[in-house]
Amino acid sequence: MKKGKLFVFSGPSGVGKGTIVKRILDETDVQFSVSMTTRKPREGEVNGESYFFVSHEEFQKTVDEGGFLEYAEVYGNRYGTPKKQAEERMEAGIDVLLDIDIQGAANVKKVCPDGVFIFILPPSIEELKHRIIGRGSETEESLRIRLGSVADELNHARDYDYCVVNGNLDEAVQTVKAIINAEHAKFSENFLIELLNKEDV
Amino acid sequence: MKKGKLFVFSGPSGVGKGTIVKRILDETDVQFSVSMTTRKPREGEVNGESYFFVSHEEFQKTVDEGGFLEYAEVYGNRYGTPKKQAEERMEAGIDVLLDIDIQGAANVKKVCPDGVFIFILPPSIEELKHRIIGRGSETEESLRIRLGSVADELNHARDYDYCVVNGNLDEAVQTVKAIINAEHAKFSENFLIELLNKEDV
Repeated sequence: MKKGKLFVFSGPSGVGKGTIVKRILDETDVQFSVSMTTRKPREGEVNGESYFFVSHEEFQKTVDEGGFLEYAEVYGNRYGTPKKQAEERMEAGIDVLLDIDIQGAANVKKVCPDGVFIFILPPSIEELKHRIIGRGSETEESLRIRLGSVADELNHARDYDYCVVNGNLDEAVQTVKAIINAEHAKFSENFLIELLNKEDV
Repeated sequence: MKKGKLFVFSGPSGVGKGTIVKRILDETDVQFSVSMTTRKPREGEVNGESYFFVSHEEFQKTVDEGGFLEYAEVYGNRYGTPKKQAEERMEAGIDVLLDIDIQGAANVKKVCPDGVFIFILPPSIEELKHRIIGRGSETEESLRIRLGSVADELNHARDYDYCVVNGNLDEAVQTVKAIINAEHAKFSENFLIELLNKEDV
């Protein structure tokens, strides 16, 4: 049985990563790894689907039990990827998708170097700033922080295997699907052994 | 300007590589690198399109001039990839496709380690033997040689970046297109620099 792969998505706020991820989950067999977080739910977010929303105490308990693939703090909130869920799915041949920030992705890379790391880029920095301002979900202070860190965030793209530009949504989704398809076509020793042993040669 | 990539295709005789390559050339912007060979044209093969068909003397002259990216001898015939044509196209941002045997691909890998190496696999060894026999273009002796070397040839798949199984032709073509698309999404330092410098940040 071929193991599933881990696809890790990051990108700056406002780049449209959430929309791409939703399309991939709707249109492929890849399954979402639900993160645990201490941040408050935004409108429309459902517990157990978007995130597992937990208290600081519950989060720390999982940390103490070694139950996270990675965990990190961003803007005062804690985010973590439950280890067991992702590992069980991959063992069963299911691809797992993580949607995490740069800091979390860097930590996942240490424990899962075989993961496929995908960074979503804006078509331009100006366009990204417009989108962040247009979203209107930020306080003045957090808006200032986000706008100021845009170039820094984009520089992290070099730690990723792939960069997908989200200029046209359909094209970006097609490219992500191509990456998933291509990653499954990467040479696999197991596959070759299976082919050679299938029949008497 | 982004440089073009080199996509190198190999696979055992009878696997249907030629059909896949033709579809890719018809349906994408990838351009074929026409090889030079001393073997006799098969029915329907056009000089300058399928191959440059040359004499042993002409071939040796190009060898002496250092004009090949690689060259090799297979079943008594010589095959070579003209260097200049491929390099000029890649400099101009055009992807180049090489359709060469395992020996030639190994030599290209030495001089073009950034090339993308794709091996076409049959769905099973039995199926491949059926296809080789069915093609009926072999002498009894060459048929014996080809059938005997099938398992050996498949073992070379491990030297390639990707393995595409040609069970269903449309699926195989889609997978190759996905590989081309994904390779273009691989992280590129130049692209990031361009994005960061495009505007005042």
